[in-house]
Amino acid sequence: MLKIYGDYRSGNCFKIQLTCALLNIEYEWIPIDIMRGEASSEEMLAKNPNAKIPVIECDDGFVLTESNAIINYLASNSALYPTDSKAIAKIQQWQFFEQYSHEPYIAVARFIKLYQGMPESRIEEFNTKRSGGLKALSIMNSHLLESKYFVGDSPTTADITLYAYTHVAHQGGFDLSKFTAILNWIDRIRALPGYHDMRTD
Amino acid sequence: MLKIYGDYRSGNCFKIQLTCALLNIEYEWIPIDIMRGEASSEEMLAKNPNAKIPVIECDDGFVLTESNAIINYLASNSALYPTDSKAIAKIQQWQFFEQYSHEPYIAVARFIKLYQGMPESRIEEFNTKRSGGLKALSIMNSHLLESKYFVGDSPTTADITLYAYTHVAHQGGFDLSKFTAILNWIDRIRALPGYHDMRTD
Repeated sequence: MLKIYGDYRSGNCFKIQLTCALLNIEYEWIPIDIMRGEASSEEMLAKNPNAKIPVIECDDGFVLTESNAIINYLASNSALYPTDSKAIAKIQQWQFFEQYSHEPYIAVARFIKLYQGMPESRIEEFNTKRSGGLKALSIMNSHLLESKYFVGDSPTTADITLYAYTHVAHQGGFDLSKFTAILNWIDRIRALPGYHDMRTD
Repeated sequence: MLKIYGDYRSGNCFKIQLTCALLNIEYEWIPIDIMRGEASSEEMLAKNPNAKIPVIECDDGFVLTESNAIINYLASNSALYPTDSKAIAKIQQWQFFEQYSHEPYIAVARFIKLYQGMPESRIEEFNTKRSGGLKALSIMNSHLLESKYFVGDSPTTADITLYAYTHVAHQGGFDLSKFTAILNWIDRIRALPGYHDMRTD
């Protein structure tokens, strides 16, 4: 059975869980506590020398890291990852946007607030995350005013990628209430067959 | 003809040029000077609301942003982008690694030093880029001790992605001399048919 090494509170790890839920893929969850440095254990470094999660390990021993690469791999041959080359290109475009222009602001602000409890030493950094995060949300909202999903007329892995940290952006201090197109899209994702929420305990 | 909106000194833009050179794809180059804010012109924002380059525009009007998504699209149906799902997954893994764990250190250090001439206000930030950059180079070097290219036995877009900022890492203050596997790999990339250097003037 597919093994997922992850942390329940991590949006990057939730991407894998949500993909599996929507595609009805069974998996074994192996909890890795990043706050205790468990991603840097000798065993985990052998799987990912970059000391990050999620990591997946397939039955045949194939190991893969980087959340967006993982969900594209799991979703290949499904409707979540179309075969049309332009659709694939647009999915990847949004996923690289997420890793460079969204996650470093919205997920990192959430990490400082939620995981670390907003230590004094990171308040200044937390505040610098605000404008980049709002810019990313604004770009997403404009796109969703024109389109039900990020690529085409049905959900793809690009939606899963962007959903992960957007739907918990309030935990990083981002107020979504004026981004109505994003809120409507979040409702559409939540209504997908198989959807389950992220554990936030 | 394919249009590339880019800046010659940008490694992200060089990825597109190198892919086109290796695949013998003709293009029109439209220079965008990011230091003069040209990526934020009304015309460019219509193509990429994230105000970043490179951007490509195909004959049929298809517009694509994000360097790694662009090169995968241009290379699809070529040997630089294999069809095997595990190879594709590994290519994407290395590309997301580059955008999250390599570029923000090595390219940003280079930007501060080369583009901005190391302003006093960014020296502290420049110094914080050092350990992340060295970690990324070390992970690459270890992998290249075992493998001629990043994925499989021949070059793929993953190599182009990682080559772009690695081969000019010295311009960001990174000394590659002890990363011998990286240096050998750089030589292999330079020897590929069609290869041309990045303009650095």
